[in-house]
Amino acid sequence: MADLLDLSMREAAAAVRRKEVSPVELARLSLERIAADEPRLHAFARLTEARAMAAAKQAEREILAGQWRGELHGVPVAVKDLYDMAGLPTTCSSKVRHDHLAAADSACVERLEQAGASIVGMTHTHEFAYGIATPTTGNPWNVEHIPGGSSGGSGATLAARGCYMAMGTDTGGSIRIPAAVCGTVGLKPTYGRVSRVGVASLSWSLDHAGPLARTVADCAVTLGALAGFDARDPGSADVPVGDYLTELEHGVKGLRIGVPRNFFFEHVETEVEAGVRAALATLQKEGAELVEVEIPMADMISAIEFGLCMPEASAYHRTMIRERAELYEPDVRTFLEAGMMIPAVDYIAALRQRTLMQAAWRTMFEANGLDALIGPAVAAVAMRRDQPTLTWPDGTEETASSVYVRLSAPANVTGTPSVSVPCGFGKGGLPVALQVMGRPFGEARILRIARAYERTVDWSTRKPSR
Amino acid sequence: MADLLDLSMREAAAAVRRKEVSPVELARLSLERIAADEPRLHAFARLTEARAMAAAKQAEREILAGQWRGELHGVPVAVKDLYDMAGLPTTCSSKVRHDHLAAADSACVERLEQAGASIVGMTHTHEFAYGIATPTTGNPWNVEHIPGGSSGGSGATLAARGCYMAMGTDTGGSIRIPAAVCGTVGLKPTYGRVSRVGVASLSWSLDHAGPLARTVADCAVTLGALAGFDARDPGSADVPVGDYLTELEHGVKGLRIGVPRNFFFEHVETEVEAGVRAALATLQKEGAELVEVEIPMADMISAIEFGLCMPEASAYHRTMIRERAELYEPDVRTFLEAGMMIPAVDYIAALRQRTLMQAAWRTMFEANGLDALIGPAVAAVAMRRDQPTLTWPDGTEETASSVYVRLSAPANVTGTPSVSVPCGFGKGGLPVALQVMGRPFGEARILRIARAYERTVDWSTRKPSR
Repeated sequence: MADLLDLSMREAAAAVRRKEVSPVELARLSLERIAADEPRLHAFARLTEARAMAAAKQAEREILAGQWRGELHGVPVAVKDLYDMAGLPTTCSSKVRHDHLAAADSACVERLEQAGASIVGMTHTHEFAYGIATPTTGNPWNVEHIPGGSSGGSGATLAARGCYMAMGTDTGGSIRIPAAVCGTVGLKPTYGRVSRVGVASLSWSLDHAGPLARTVADCAVTLGALAGFDARDPGSADVPVGDYLTELEHGVKGLRIGVPRNFFFEHVETEVEAGVRAALATLQKEGAELVEVEIPMADMISAIEFGLCMPEASAYHRTMIRERAELYEPDVRTFLEAGMMIPAVDYIAALRQRTLMQAAWRTMFEANGLDALIGPAVAAVAMRRDQPTLTWPDGTEETASSVYVRLSAPANVTGTPSVSVPCGFGKGGLPVALQVMGRPFGEARILRIARAYERTVDWSTRKPSR
Repeated sequence: MADLLDLSMREAAAAVRRKEVSPVELARLSLERIAADEPRLHAFARLTEARAMAAAKQAEREILAGQWRGELHGVPVAVKDLYDMAGLPTTCSSKVRHDHLAAADSACVERLEQAGASIVGMTHTHEFAYGIATPTTGNPWNVEHIPGGSSGGSGATLAARGCYMAMGTDTGGSIRIPAAVCGTVGLKPTYGRVSRVGVASLSWSLDHAGPLARTVADCAVTLGALAGFDARDPGSADVPVGDYLTELEHGVKGLRIGVPRNFFFEHVETEVEAGVRAALATLQKEGAELVEVEIPMADMISAIEFGLCMPEASAYHRTMIRERAELYEPDVRTFLEAGMMIPAVDYIAALRQRTLMQAAWRTMFEANGLDALIGPAVAAVAMRRDQPTLTWPDGTEETASSVYVRLSAPANVTGTPSVSVPCGFGKGGLPVALQVMGRPFGEARILRIARAYERTVDWSTRKPSR
């Protein structure tokens, strides 16, 4: 029965629907697999077994009674330790929040449970989502390497087949980075597409909630359950929800895909570039038209990302850092204290530059008639846990944080949707990934392109040994 | 013929339409009156005679040909020295901009000229709209007193019958303050209702463009010509434009008007309070229902106003203050340099508090079923030009800036529309005024209420001696 956990979420959901497997059995399998892996991976801040089993039992009753709710019904999933679940702690993997109990469910938890999912646990994050290492957690492909972050626990448990879908959050790449370096799929929807109510904030104008899963279709199914306007989230967009499944298998014939001339292939590991270029060739063979494009304002991306994120994070932590400074990890504390000193005029300049960059990206998409833009999801495979910097062949040294955030940040700054998809293996046999970025609220289109590529890949090779 | 300038704009427009007076004649009268008053009032940064006469001649031709464009056609008006007019200087009444020439018309100038108005000149502002004194300019009721600000020149020339309408801008009260202390009407529309393209910015998230005029109806006519979405202004609202004239004369029977229990009547001159209370009694007699309400978060209003305005102004002036610091007036320079040092976390806190306050005002209006809220427009009559502070009967000393901005700022912070209307005379025979604040995009309703009150007033008494 252990093979059940190798199925995709849609396959598992189909088996549940056909009553070949019980949601209770599936939740138990998931919890056992996680428990077996925890000593090695430390992917979870806590398991939520009682709540998972209650949901699974309800799902079992409903499905036996013929009341099937959809492709999340009876399926074990996880959420990052930033998503509130009523009555449970949300610690954001931080000692600072050791005494925090959530009063109510986050909007996403509520929607997942309405869809019938069994939430088996809360995954580790880099403290308060403010980093890309998730130092608590090991990468299933090689535990000496980081699982990426900040949603590192979600990436790790998915790669290790602990459950079928795990929620992340993405402020500068925190869904796509762990998805990429753990070899799973990760979807950052358009800014405002998924409610962030009840999710601890890192930087409110850049924060996104979204899923990591093992297939593109599993991300599409999850987005369908999560998407929608929520007046309680000031960033929420009152835009009709798309249909993320209908065009999923339509292929790429006639679609126009932008290939960046600058920025996205600079300081990128050879194997990463090779994987992405090969995927682009595949998509071209499948009928897509490749269009070379210039990324506008490329030298401003990191300045805008950090110029917005640092003061917004410091504003959010303002009281806590005064009262509990000594409980923060040194790296996060330094970031928060530095952010306190950024002048408002610099923050306002970053706001202005973002507005200009959003307009420039809109023009890039419209002038070239693009359906999507493809580049590497991250510049390098997972680094060793003790490796603070990476040295490029030209001698340039770059911090780990910059290596991973640099290519994912554009989609945060512009608010455009982006899905990261595995596209091979690089140094040390570790996964590499591409990302498909789209027009605002163009999730259906980027998922379709990602799926068209995924269909051509032999997935059987893509599983870490245990 | 000089009496023509005592007409309201609508009356003058009607005379023009009936061909009783030529637009050319009217523009000449206006320019002569202004020229005669300038040595005493200094209301104008510059006259734009050539452009006014060209527009007036065109209007004359069109009207003789039976092509009447509406109630601004052939009417002399003015704009604040913040509104770009192609080929002319926009100095913002500052030596810093002595060499600035506008490349294109501001959106408002374009719309006014499309409506057929003759723009006779650009009125003085407190330097860069950053103050309430407009020290260049005298108050027509007593030139030893300030005309208010920052749109002081617009208020002064209207009170002196220099023209029929003059554009102002309002970031903390800069339309309503000069309107109130000069005894004219001033309308700050809802945030986003009127395009600010081509208008020098003080604080982009609080700035509003709008008219000062001698009657409520003249403001309504002008708003009708100016209102509308403009994608080039990031703050512009894509909301249908209302009809500001249809319900104007419908009276107040059955309307619910909020009367503040706190904040608006604290530290207010006796005559100001008496004028507003008398107006409220009049409106009640006319059939309105008065409802006592509590102003929420009242102690936060000034902190939010200045917490947003100071850093946004400093960001706008960032380069200029580096290159031309010595050309600024000392008061504005001090404000700008202080604003440079405000941390981003404080600015972000102000942004958050504003969001909360906007929600609290929405609740106040909805829970009480209010059509409008009425309070004093400003706390005191025009102060002497050499008077930096005001001492209240309880011994409290307050800066001039705070005396005038305190009661007008709520409509800027909340973005709600507010129209200021004269309601009598106070200390030294100087004008006092009330303001009618409304729901977002509820301009038609507040103009109707202001008009219902205005109808009961004997306007013949309201004109400064020359």
